[in-house]
Amino acid sequence: AAAVGETTQTVCSVKLFLVDVCACLCVLQIDEEVAKLLQLKAQIGGDDGKHQFVLKTAKGTRDYNPKQMAIRERVFNTIISCFKRHGAETIDTPVFELKETLTGKYGEDSKLIYDLKDQGGELLSLRYDLTVPFARYLAMNKITNIKRYHIAKVYRRDNPAMTRGRYREFYQCDFDIAGQYDGMIPDAECLKIVHEILSELDLGDFRIKVNDRRILDGMFAVCGVPDDKFRSICSTVDKLDKMPWEDVKKEMVNEKGLSEEVADRIGEYVSLQGGMDLAERLLQDHRMSQSKQACAGLSDIKLLFSYLQLFQVTDKVVFDLSLARGLDYYTGIIYEAVLTQAGAVPAPAEAQKGAPAEESVSVGSVAGGGRYDGLVGMFDPKGRKVPCVGVSIGIERIFSIMEHKAEVSAEKVRTTEVQVMVASAQKNLLEEKLRLITELWDAGIKAEVMYKKNPKLLSQLQHCEESGIPLVAILGEQELKDGVVKLRVVATREEVDISRADLIAEIRKRTSEA
Amino acid sequence: AAAVGETTQTVCSVKLFLVDVCACLCVLQIDEEVAKLLQLKAQIGGDDGKHQFVLKTAKGTRDYNPKQMAIRERVFNTIISCFKRHGAETIDTPVFELKETLTGKYGEDSKLIYDLKDQGGELLSLRYDLTVPFARYLAMNKITNIKRYHIAKVYRRDNPAMTRGRYREFYQCDFDIAGQYDGMIPDAECLKIVHEILSELDLGDFRIKVNDRRILDGMFAVCGVPDDKFRSICSTVDKLDKMPWEDVKKEMVNEKGLSEEVADRIGEYVSLQGGMDLAERLLQDHRMSQSKQACAGLSDIKLLFSYLQLFQVTDKVVFDLSLARGLDYYTGIIYEAVLTQAGAVPAPAEAQKGAPAEESVSVGSVAGGGRYDGLVGMFDPKGRKVPCVGVSIGIERIFSIMEHKAEVSAEKVRTTEVQVMVASAQKNLLEEKLRLITELWDAGIKAEVMYKKNPKLLSQLQHCEESGIPLVAILGEQELKDGVVKLRVVATREEVDISRADLIAEIRKRTSEA
Repeated sequence: AAAVGETTQTVCSVKLFLVDVCACLCVLQIDEEVAKLLQLKAQIGGDDGKHQFVLKTAKGTRDYNPKQMAIRERVFNTIISCFKRHGAETIDTPVFELKETLTGKYGEDSKLIYDLKDQGGELLSLRYDLTVPFARYLAMNKITNIKRYHIAKVYRRDNPAMTRGRYREFYQCDFDIAGQYDGMIPDAECLKIVHEILSELDLGDFRIKVNDRRILDGMFAVCGVPDDKFRSICSTVDKLDKMPWEDVKKEMVNEKGLSEEVADRIGEYVSLQGGMDLAERLLQDHRMSQSKQACAGLSDIKLLFSYLQLFQVTDKVVFDLSLARGLDYYTGIIYEAVLTQAGAVPAPAEAQKGAPAEESVSVGSVAGGGRYDGLVGMFDPKGRKVPCVGVSIGIERIFSIMEHKAEVSAEKVRTTEVQVMVASAQKNLLEEKLRLITELWDAGIKAEVMYKKNPKLLSQLQHCEESGIPLVAILGEQELKDGVVKLRVVATREEVDISRADLIAEIRKRTSEA
Repeated sequence: AAAVGETTQTVCSVKLFLVDVCACLCVLQIDEEVAKLLQLKAQIGGDDGKHQFVLKTAKGTRDYNPKQMAIRERVFNTIISCFKRHGAETIDTPVFELKETLTGKYGEDSKLIYDLKDQGGELLSLRYDLTVPFARYLAMNKITNIKRYHIAKVYRRDNPAMTRGRYREFYQCDFDIAGQYDGMIPDAECLKIVHEILSELDLGDFRIKVNDRRILDGMFAVCGVPDDKFRSICSTVDKLDKMPWEDVKKEMVNEKGLSEEVADRIGEYVSLQGGMDLAERLLQDHRMSQSKQACAGLSDIKLLFSYLQLFQVTDKVVFDLSLARGLDYYTGIIYEAVLTQAGAVPAPAEAQKGAPAEESVSVGSVAGGGRYDGLVGMFDPKGRKVPCVGVSIGIERIFSIMEHKAEVSAEKVRTTEVQVMVASAQKNLLEEKLRLITELWDAGIKAEVMYKKNPKLLSQLQHCEESGIPLVAILGEQELKDGVVKLRVVATREEVDISRADLIAEIRKRTSEA
């Protein structure tokens, strides 16, 4: 009964508070509504009263046309083959999650989450990445071991830059290993996977930068950054790939309130790049060696590089102390892959401004990831942790590059796999053509026929030229009488009579991929 | 200047109106907020102050685990192969569209559309099907000819019935042919495709019901239904697959205001089923023959059946005058495929109630579609029409059946494609294993290694048994000395020494699909 009384009291004070809030809200709402009405009026336009329908996709999104889909399929096949080669299973999760599932996982970026309208029932949000749904899935199903990939679209209310492959709806291709394992073996496999995929996609030269959150935190500590500023300073360091050190330092001193000396100490460290040797050197560094955390991270970097040597991928991997990555949930190793070859894609104009010369050739990150040992525990009622490490391939930027490549190259991208067109040389042969194409379809041959009763032979042949169909099976009165089909090779214009009984085998032989 | 004055006036009166609305809203909002707070308090529970996190997916949605994904992949492969065999390209569109793109396309079902929250910018909704985005895509890109498939998730705020495969997030597999072609050729191909897919998926016996919107409208007209009630009566007829005629008639008379005689006349027609012969008979019917529309539809049904005969699919196709289909946008032929074999899936309890005996064995629609010649024109600024016909495969119900089949069968569903496990018989061989697996991966072999420094041989072999890995490549001191690998066949426990140089070829030979 006491609890009920308490509730009633709370409700009353909440009511009073809400009345105030609503009064404010109402004024805001009126202004908003007026703005919307004015905009609507502008859209409706002049006096013709006609509703001007806006024929477009939502801001920051795009359709994929058949040619783009063909390229997308090719890229996905390469990536999925690699994931499967490494023994991954796959899962899928819904496009929206309970809003509270996403709450508190993304730090400052939470403002970019798309919410669904409250139409009664649960409060929902579109997924922001595939990692948080994965952690929710593991906790919900009490899974402690899994190696899975997940390829799906995620949603961010970001400023789109579509020519550079930055969208509000975009694909992520994630590979993650969950489970309590011996140090750095799964972590090294993730880097091996990035190396395999970027090599196979043939996007030009690339680098995989590696760092560790514990090294960053340890470095901040020994440089004299107050504990409560670690995450915030981390975000500032993360801007080093887009801003020169001078600007980053200014932000540290002027906005984040570090002293010049502390900033300069950080500056020395974040300019360092190397391999296993650098990790060894830093383990001896008089300042770094004072941080247990940093030492743990540095030892793991050493171990990581020893496995990377066995995997034969050290040629592209750099231990880079300036790599920070924005997301809150990383707890250990972090990495990011960047393409380093100029000209692979139209250079991003903004990123060039003020960037040092050697940075301007970078077209930005195409893969990234790291270890997040605490995320699953955030979903478990008892806080049981499941250590995880994973990588996400930034596929949209890769699509942009591949599309650009396809445009400039002479190679024609086929959007269908049709092997043969069933055509006729004379009129009134539709029925015969449908009979023949039924035989072909039922034998598994990919075949097309024009949806006209009496198409011209020329227009049938033209369709083959345009869509890259290699063969034409031509029916005519004479062929029907003789029980043959005239098989025409589109590329050479060679024609040969084939008996109906041999046709399927002949088409297979002539269009086999081998 | 006059326009500006007008706007100002409008704005003022809108402001006054909105103040009233807001006052009302505030009261409503307070009540709502109070309810939410009380609910929150209930969730928080007793005095321990701990937040009880709800670990679930959104209502009406589900995750796919690896086994379900393996089944899903198999189903998709069958369907995509069929679409490609018929020469279709593929496209993709965003998961959300401008709200106004979806407005006025779905009739009564519009209330089931998910809206996104207005977070500034455009008003957006999740797509309800793939047909309307397809029409928007055609109009936007001025495409007048295309044969495309699209496999993607759509969203409906419906009452979920998840055991029967009815979800709020679900896949649609659509195949559509757009273009001005000779009558019924593309329409017949759509039915051929449904026939091929349902046969290949091996789901048991099925029927494809066919009707035409023009026959329905003509029938309503000659039976005496007032013009403005066609759509509404059409919805009632659509319920015949779930309700007996008596109940449907009651709805027509009591709710929709038809006279008993008119309802009875409809009742006679909608009980008819047949093939080309029925279409011929109805063309002679004294009432039907009075409707030009009905006659056009009936002639097309005849033509359709003549093509279906050539495609050899008439065994499963029934001309059924009770088929109505809910959606507004159909203009000609409509069809729906149902599985007719009892026991293929747990019988839906609700649907059985009151249904006649022969209906209770039907597990509901697994594919549907029709001709919609007006939809693209609704998006074109000049109203230019692009005739379209298409089919949508209801994949979730098919997944349910396949999952159920997999559960009851002894067959083990593999969730990875790993060919070989790299294992060790003694300790301290991690480096050697990583060296070997690198060779295998680089040769394209699907291989796994345990993420432990010194796993027991038994646990390595157990993992192979559990996940169906057929081969184990075992390294030991002796094998390393001899330059060989012990290759173990998991199923037979046979072991054979293979030289390192021959290992890749041997694995390929033993795991080739042929």
